Amino acid sequence: MLPFGDRLAAAVQEKRSAVCVGLDPRWPSLPPSLVAGVDATPAGMANAYERFCCEIIDVVAGLVPIVKPQVAFFEQLGASGMVALAKVIRYAIDKDLLVVADAKRNDIGTTAEAYAAAFLGRGPDSSWGSDALTVSPYLGEDSLQPFVDRAHANGSGLFVLVKTSNPGSGFIQDLKVDSRSISQRIADWVQQATIAAQSSSGWGSIGAVVGATYPGELIELRQRMPNAWLLIPGYGAQGGKARDVAAAFDSRGLGAIVNNSRGIIFAHQLPAYAQLSDWQRAVEAATREMIEALRSETPNVARG
Amino acid sequence: MLPFGDRLAAAVQEKRSAVCVGLDPRWPSLPPSLVAGVDATPAGMANAYERFCCEIIDVVAGLVPIVKPQVAFFEQLGASGMVALAKVIRYAIDKDLLVVADAKRNDIGTTAEAYAAAFLGRGPDSSWGSDALTVSPYLGEDSLQPFVDRAHANGSGLFVLVKTSNPGSGFIQDLKVDSRSISQRIADWVQQATIAAQSSSGWGSIGAVVGATYPGELIELRQRMPNAWLLIPGYGAQGGKARDVAAAFDSRGLGAIVNNSRGIIFAHQLPAYAQLSDWQRAVEAATREMIEALRSETPNVARG
Repeated sequence: MLPFGDRLAAAVQEKRSAVCVGLDPRWPSLPPSLVAGVDATPAGMANAYERFCCEIIDVVAGLVPIVKPQVAFFEQLGASGMVALAKVIRYAIDKDLLVVADAKRNDIGTTAEAYAAAFLGRGPDSSWGSDALTVSPYLGEDSLQPFVDRAHANGSGLFVLVKTSNPGSGFIQDLKVDSRSISQRIADWVQQATIAAQSSSGWGSIGAVVGATYPGELIELRQRMPNAWLLIPGYGAQGGKARDVAAAFDSRGLGAIVNNSRGIIFAHQLPAYAQLSDWQRAVEAATREMIEALRSETPNVARG
Repeated sequence: MLPFGDRLAAAVQEKRSAVCVGLDPRWPSLPPSLVAGVDATPAGMANAYERFCCEIIDVVAGLVPIVKPQVAFFEQLGASGMVALAKVIRYAIDKDLLVVADAKRNDIGTTAEAYAAAFLGRGPDSSWGSDALTVSPYLGEDSLQPFVDRAHANGSGLFVLVKTSNPGSGFIQDLKVDSRSISQRIADWVQQATIAAQSSSGWGSIGAVVGATYPGELIELRQRMPNAWLLIPGYGAQGGKARDVAAAFDSRGLGAIVNNSRGIIFAHQLPAYAQLSDWQRAVEAATREMIEALRSETPNVARG
């Protein structure tokens, strides 16, 4: 399998879109047609989550390069939820989408190897079979290395938490030591890790999470990680705008994917889309609108 | 349900032991009698993991207050593994043990709430139903608060990663800002969070992970968190000794639980226990030896 960084570059160019659709199923927000008559048991809810996510995938597969299931919502439902997660990932891959599992995993030594094996790679030895995984750096470099090793070995990828989109992310991430913040320090590590393996696109397979809600930091971190894909949360519901993320893209329109969860998957709840005939049309309209918004601020994405 | 901190205090006093047995099933290390004839499929391996962990629980339930399943090894096996994890947790609780799920989860907002709901509490609304959970602080205070809120609401507990046992833990954790390291900063937060709720034992329900492999830091962090339970990994295979952890205990023998995974559950592989009739006797002997080693360095634990 080609390196994740190169596969993502090809997918962004093919779809002419840098939108990542976040699959965050939340029971109270599901379209009424999907919950009507469903028992609110873990098994019933997991089936509804699977159907919801797969129908979203049907709508967006031709429009975006990648989807991001949020593992927490599936894990909340227990084993039924995790079965649904595996089916959703498989379904997305069958529809020619890339998949990043948003699980923010981390541990040390052979335990980190176990998480890496659980999530990374499409082969039969990975239980969840995703193309990439989000990981947390608090435990240090030696905790990240097993994930990096597996990613480089089987063509999968990582997004290391660097500067997250939440209001309190500065608690650790903004602290400065010798004029370099913790997030900058992690960014420098990511850049070294991502250039340690070959890539034909110039974009490595070890990326970083950087929130759209901190556009100043985004510009600075982009410069520190010239070869790392950025996974950018915080667009839409959290306040990030297209112009806030423009600096993340190179002249070919590559280098970042911008995630939107609620603003796309629950678009049927937004007044702007209330007149549409069904919730899937709202998903499609919101996705197309975000694609256009990104293209207007990042003309190179439009040219592909 | 009584607060986790008080339940843990009662359990340590009842068992006169501060040992936490880490349930880290690894396929290559399982006793030969448990793998003989088992198909190395996820379902077959998950069944073997469940049997292995439940038989360990049978041996240690009368000796220790708490067990710590390592979620990564179950997650590696996919949904079958997670079904086995739920059964192991249920089995331990039925044997009157406390259970801390070692999952090192973290996320923001409603996603953090989903993880908290997934793991925290014995009630039917928690899929995995553990008494406590390990969590990572990289995303900041607002990412930890949903876990704290749920713990305080339903009598469950947390162990926040503060200073981990691995060789590279200093990469972030040891960095100093205004003469206070990141781990000290998190420790101060933990102390505030744990005293925010009532406890009758004096030990709150928000604890911290501090490695036995850094005894100097352990002493300092103990002083910063006088009301927080410490979960201490790194004993045994990673090099930590009983004298390294003595400072973690108060005059009643309370305040810390010391984890041992490989040194107990795979004791059948150690020369010292090779002459025993079966692997369960090796588990028992290693557990009793560790209990005695801790008692000899921490006489108050022995008095209970």
